[in-house]
Amino acid sequence: MIKVGVNGYGTIGKRVADAVTAQPDMELVGVAKTRPNFEAEAAVRKGYPLYAAIPERSDAFREGGIDLAGEVEDMVMASDVVVDTTPSGIGEQNRELYRQYDTPALFQGGEDADIADVSFNARSNYDAAEDAEFVRVVSCNTTGISRVVAPLDEAFGVEKARVTLIRRGGDPGQTSRGPINDILPDPITIPSHHGPDVNTIFPDLDIDTLGVKVPATLMHLHSFNVTLESEPTAEEVKELLSDEPRLFLVPGSAGIDGTGKLKEFAMDTGRPRGDLWENCIWAESVSMEGDDLYLFQSIHQESDVIPENVDAIRAVLGRETKEDSMALTDERLGVGLESVFDGMRKRLTPYQ
Amino acid sequence: MIKVGVNGYGTIGKRVADAVTAQPDMELVGVAKTRPNFEAEAAVRKGYPLYAAIPERSDAFREGGIDLAGEVEDMVMASDVVVDTTPSGIGEQNRELYRQYDTPALFQGGEDADIADVSFNARSNYDAAEDAEFVRVVSCNTTGISRVVAPLDEAFGVEKARVTLIRRGGDPGQTSRGPINDILPDPITIPSHHGPDVNTIFPDLDIDTLGVKVPATLMHLHSFNVTLESEPTAEEVKELLSDEPRLFLVPGSAGIDGTGKLKEFAMDTGRPRGDLWENCIWAESVSMEGDDLYLFQSIHQESDVIPENVDAIRAVLGRETKEDSMALTDERLGVGLESVFDGMRKRLTPYQ
Repeated sequence: MIKVGVNGYGTIGKRVADAVTAQPDMELVGVAKTRPNFEAEAAVRKGYPLYAAIPERSDAFREGGIDLAGEVEDMVMASDVVVDTTPSGIGEQNRELYRQYDTPALFQGGEDADIADVSFNARSNYDAAEDAEFVRVVSCNTTGISRVVAPLDEAFGVEKARVTLIRRGGDPGQTSRGPINDILPDPITIPSHHGPDVNTIFPDLDIDTLGVKVPATLMHLHSFNVTLESEPTAEEVKELLSDEPRLFLVPGSAGIDGTGKLKEFAMDTGRPRGDLWENCIWAESVSMEGDDLYLFQSIHQESDVIPENVDAIRAVLGRETKEDSMALTDERLGVGLESVFDGMRKRLTPYQ
Repeated sequence: MIKVGVNGYGTIGKRVADAVTAQPDMELVGVAKTRPNFEAEAAVRKGYPLYAAIPERSDAFREGGIDLAGEVEDMVMASDVVVDTTPSGIGEQNRELYRQYDTPALFQGGEDADIADVSFNARSNYDAAEDAEFVRVVSCNTTGISRVVAPLDEAFGVEKARVTLIRRGGDPGQTSRGPINDILPDPITIPSHHGPDVNTIFPDLDIDTLGVKVPATLMHLHSFNVTLESEPTAEEVKELLSDEPRLFLVPGSAGIDGTGKLKEFAMDTGRPRGDLWENCIWAESVSMEGDDLYLFQSIHQESDVIPENVDAIRAVLGRETKEDSMALTDERLGVGLESVFDGMRKRLTPYQ
């Protein structure tokens, strides 16, 4: 059993803890938190051992009636791998702690790329993480782009990718973020950081990205253009993408018109927290104009990196092949929405 | 003096009426309206002769205490040109009325292209409108795209244009429109209607457009990519665009980060209704990556077509050259925001 500690218990951390608990080859050592808020309360109810991320604040937990299993150092010591899901910039400060206990650590995409030996996306470079001291699981958007670019490049060759990312302003719980009733080029300069970040996974890829921020909280939307080296039909592209794990082609017959209905659908299927671990690609949008491929996809910023973190735990320890790890992760989480639409598909033209 | 009637007095109609009134060579015959609402009240206060667009509803105006100058037919009869600013689809129904009185009419971009002999953008095809029976002034977004494409194609050659339009869900007054907290591919299929619509102005242009709808009301935002036939520097592109009328390069030094501050700026300068007749192009966003040009621009959906309508009035009657009409229109409206920033520019690096 791989012993996993999770440092940080916010949007990503709580999901990683649940996902680790669901794996047959992993054991959750516990989770480290800075504050005894509603999320700490929920962790206790789930029976997750709770560690104080900031030892000086241990008293606050006790005063809140929450028993601690120890301090973050104890958790790191007891772990084979630590997943650091602290806010951007804090991971950097924690690095020395992990090094001290010779514990490999996974950081999230909010950290600078140079925090780790390797930036990671399971589909694209699983093997590169083996034996690394530190691995950085790339951000939700970079993950979403990488998952599409990898198969396209293998099957058709990518001459150039151009992606406009229409980004949610904040997560549903981030009450202090904007914009309200505005559309912001963000950043105003081009490229946004996403293109260079994708290059940490695909060093030779020619990619330009543009970022825009809008008043929404549910998911990001990518307006995706790839100039291919060959000219497949749109049907061939859909066929390729529908065979990929973690890509969900939203069938036209589903009547899903945006991120709100995607989330509603995820909740109707019983997904925990309404999570969408898959890229949600609108099948109807997949189009070829000459050698230019276009598509729209939505990316759930809170959850698409969760299966990637689970795979990275195995990858860094050299356990399992890429294919086996991804399959196991997906099976245990319940990744894959196609089956829900199987009946619908049989009754209607595929991917209308 | 050119006698102009305005049929419809909503978002576009009221602005056209004001703009016509400001021209030295035009006289406003009046405006036709269906209902005696707050906008009718405002028209009366401005002294605009009011005509009943639907004769059967004349009583409603009288009951509301508003004097009518007559019915829409009277207005058409008295006009040299009618600007039809009725809601999409209604223009089509009005065509017979204009034909009956042999009055050339301008329609708006919401109508199908085949409503008119020619689709119009002053910068791109002013002369094509001369002697036409019906002219269609293309929509706000198509206008915004055409204004950029025309000079780029002349100066550098356009190999292909790809534009993602992040569209405001509705105008500020359209209380029944959405989305709220959502990002919608709209339409989900590619291309959106904008590309083909730009082709009504530039038949040979290779352009793909993608539409997205978001919860904002102030302006649209275009994520603009043009693969050029040559490779100018970003500075050369900025130089070209800054010399164009109706393109405003938002200087980085202005501290304008999105559509909200653009509108705030327009209001601070005393613009009527905070209108922005110009494409607002973020200077900092103008970038070249190889032969790929990228830029962000915001388009004020309520007002960018107003100077185009004024020019189309002259164009259809064969009055003035393109350059003279555009210059006169712009001078009388007050188009051109660069001067506001002249001081700022002198103190700082241009277009930072």
